[in-house]
Amino acid sequence: MKNINAGVIGLGCRGSAMLDLLLQIEGVTVSWVCDLYEDRIAAGIQAVEKAGQKTPLSTQSYRDMLSDPSLDAVFIFSAWENHVPAAVDCMLAGKCTAMEVGGAYSIDDCWQLVRTYEKTKTPFMLLENCCYGKRETMVLNMVRKGLFGEVVHCRGGYCHDLREEVAFGKENRHYRLKNYLHRNCENYPTHELGPIAKVLNINRGNCMLSLVSVASKAAGMKEYIKQKKPDDAVLMNADFAQGDIITTVITCADGATILLTLDTTLPRSYSRGFTVQGTKGMYSEESDSVYLDGVSTHAWEAEPTWGTAKHFEEHLSPVWKDYMENGIKGGHGGIDWLELCAFVDCVRSGAPMPIDVYDAAAWMAVTPLSEASIATGNAVAFPDFTNGAWTDRAPLDVL
Amino acid sequence: MKNINAGVIGLGCRGSAMLDLLLQIEGVTVSWVCDLYEDRIAAGIQAVEKAGQKTPLSTQSYRDMLSDPSLDAVFIFSAWENHVPAAVDCMLAGKCTAMEVGGAYSIDDCWQLVRTYEKTKTPFMLLENCCYGKRETMVLNMVRKGLFGEVVHCRGGYCHDLREEVAFGKENRHYRLKNYLHRNCENYPTHELGPIAKVLNINRGNCMLSLVSVASKAAGMKEYIKQKKPDDAVLMNADFAQGDIITTVITCADGATILLTLDTTLPRSYSRGFTVQGTKGMYSEESDSVYLDGVSTHAWEAEPTWGTAKHFEEHLSPVWKDYMENGIKGGHGGIDWLELCAFVDCVRSGAPMPIDVYDAAAWMAVTPLSEASIATGNAVAFPDFTNGAWTDRAPLDVL
Repeated sequence: MKNINAGVIGLGCRGSAMLDLLLQIEGVTVSWVCDLYEDRIAAGIQAVEKAGQKTPLSTQSYRDMLSDPSLDAVFIFSAWENHVPAAVDCMLAGKCTAMEVGGAYSIDDCWQLVRTYEKTKTPFMLLENCCYGKRETMVLNMVRKGLFGEVVHCRGGYCHDLREEVAFGKENRHYRLKNYLHRNCENYPTHELGPIAKVLNINRGNCMLSLVSVASKAAGMKEYIKQKKPDDAVLMNADFAQGDIITTVITCADGATILLTLDTTLPRSYSRGFTVQGTKGMYSEESDSVYLDGVSTHAWEAEPTWGTAKHFEEHLSPVWKDYMENGIKGGHGGIDWLELCAFVDCVRSGAPMPIDVYDAAAWMAVTPLSEASIATGNAVAFPDFTNGAWTDRAPLDVL
Repeated sequence: MKNINAGVIGLGCRGSAMLDLLLQIEGVTVSWVCDLYEDRIAAGIQAVEKAGQKTPLSTQSYRDMLSDPSLDAVFIFSAWENHVPAAVDCMLAGKCTAMEVGGAYSIDDCWQLVRTYEKTKTPFMLLENCCYGKRETMVLNMVRKGLFGEVVHCRGGYCHDLREEVAFGKENRHYRLKNYLHRNCENYPTHELGPIAKVLNINRGNCMLSLVSVASKAAGMKEYIKQKKPDDAVLMNADFAQGDIITTVITCADGATILLTLDTTLPRSYSRGFTVQGTKGMYSEESDSVYLDGVSTHAWEAEPTWGTAKHFEEHLSPVWKDYMENGIKGGHGGIDWLELCAFVDCVRSGAPMPIDVYDAAAWMAVTPLSEASIATGNAVAFPDFTNGAWTDRAPLDVL
C-alpha cells in the first residue's frame, strides 16, 4: 500500500478535528500543516507528533507546501472564501485535492474549479460527509432498488442554530459573522443537497435547471444579541443582511423538484430534514420513517432505533455494512471517516472520485444563484458545468 | 335563543357529514336541502327527518331556496367551482353565508366575494375548520402570549394521499378528477394557510405581498392508474396536468415568509405539517413538539400524547377549553363542530365573522396566483382585497 504524504490547510475547529481523523488512516502521513494563525499551527504540529508521526513542515502560506514534490494530497479545511482559490492552486500543482464544503461566492468560482480540473486532471473531491450518512445511503440504496418508484420530490435543510457561532465570530476568528452581516443567500447548501443530488442522478442523467429562493426577514440575530451581547455596541447596532429562513426550490431536467431550507439563526434543534418522495413510497427524516405503498397503512412505519430497525437490516448500504463490520470510527457518526477513506482510496487506486468537480460546482452554485434570485425576485437558471455531458455520463454512486 | 332556518347546498360526502352535525346544533332548523343529484337529496331529507325535524323543502337549483323569506342562513358544501357563484347569490339574497373551503378559479372570483359583501353587508364566513384545530389554536395562543417571540416563518401543507378519490372521480361524481387532469396549481391552500394567516395577522396589520410556486412532474397518478385501473383506457392514456408536489413560498408585508406544500398524488400518510418559527421558539407538527429558547435544550421537548402534554395544559386555547369542558362533539376531531358553532353564534349575535370575506379572498387567491406563477415561472403579487384597510384593521382571533 502506497504511503500518501498529505498537507492540511486550515486548522480551526473543523480542520483540527479532521486532522485527528486523518492521522488514524493507515498509510497517510501528514507532512505539512498550514494556517494563518501561529497558535493553530503549533497545535497542529503537536497533534501530528502525538500520533507518532514525524514533526510536519508548517507554513502560514499554503503555496509553500505546493512546491514540495513529495506531497501527494492536500486537504482544505479553511474559511469558505479560501476554498476555491486554494483548490485551484492545489490542482494546478498536481496535488490530489480534497475540499471541505461551503457555498461558492460566484458562478465563476464554480467554473474555475471545473476548468482547472479539466486542464490538469488532478483528482479532486468535495468532502460532503452527509453523502455518507447511514440514513442517506440507506435511502439511496432503497431508491436504486426501486422501492420508492420514480422519485418526484426531495427535501432537505440545514437547520442548525448557529447564533452563538455567528455572534461570537470576532472572538472566535470565525468567518460566519461577516457573511451573515453582509450577504443574504442559501449560504450552506451542500449538506442537504449532496445526498439529494445523488438520489436524483444530478450530472449523471439528470441536472438542475433552475432555482428560485425567497428570504424571510432577519430577526433572529437581533434578538439573540439583545439577550446575549447587550454590551457589544457594534453588533447591537448592526443590521444583519442574512434572512433567518431561506427557502429554495430547484427544478430538475427530469421534472423532479428539490426544496432546500437554510435555518441557522432561530432557536431550534438540529435537523437536515432529508425527505425523498416517489410514486411508490417515501422516506422522511423528520419522522425518521419509511412509507411504502401497499405495505404501510395510513400510519408511519416507525423506525425509532438507529441501526436496529428493519429497514436498516434489509437495506443498509454496502459502504455502511463494511464499516459496521470493521467497527465505526471518527466524527459525526462516522461520516467524516467514510469520506476521508473514500478520497484516500481513490488517490491510491486512481478510481474516479465519488463526489467530483462537477458535483462540487453544481451544488456550490446554489449559493450565488440563490443570492441573485433573492436580490431580483426572479428564478435563475443553473449553468451546465458538464457542457452537456450530463445527458450520458455513467452513474457513479457513493454506495 | 333565536331559531335559525338553514339551507344546505351540496350533499355529497362532505355535505352529508356536515348536515348531520348541523342537525345537532341547538336552535338550528334545516328547512332546505339542495343537490344536483336526486339520490343525494333523498338522503338529505331522510337525515333531517331522522333528526326529528320537519321534512325540509328540496331543490336541484339553489336559487329556489333563496326566494324563501323564512330562510336565515345557507351552508355551501358543493363542488369547488360552485362555491363562489353560490356564495355571491346567497349574499345578494341577504342570507347569512357559510362557505366550505377550496381554491378560487380566478382572482375575479375573489373580488366578487369581496365586492358582493361590501355591497350587501350580508354576514359571510369561510368554513376553514383547521383554524379551530386543537394544536393550531394552542400555537396561536402561545404566539399571542409572546412565547415564540417575533414570528419569522411558517410552514404548512395539505399532504393527503387522494389518488383513489381522483382516479375514481367519474364513478364517485367527484370534482377532483377534472381539476387534476387539466389544472396545475396549489389547488387546496386554505387548510394549511388559514391557521398560519391567523398567526401572522394577515389582513389585520399584515398582508401577503407576493408568491412563487413551483410544480414537480406529474407521475403519481400515472403509476396509480397502472396499478389500480389498468382497464380504464381513458385514464391509462391520460396525462395529468397537476404536478404531484406544488411548493409555494409567500412573502408578507412584515418580512415573514410562508411555505406551503400540496402533496396529494403520492403514497404517504396524512399531515398538514403546521410549523411556526419565531425568534424565541417554534412549534412543529411533524415532530409534534415545541422548542423554547433557553428552556428546551438541543432536543425536542417531546409532546406525544394528544391533550395530556404540558403545553396543552398550560396553553390550550379558550375555545378548546370550553369545548372540552362541554364534551367534544363532531367530525374531524371536533373542528367541524367548532366552526359551525362559531358561524351560528355570529349569525345570532351579529358579531363579526372570525374568518371573513377578506380572509377568504386572500387565502383562496393562492390557487389562481400559483397557477400563474407555475405557468410563467415568475413570482406574482397578491391583490390587496382590503384596499389598504389591512394596515389598521383591528385584530380578531378565533380563540
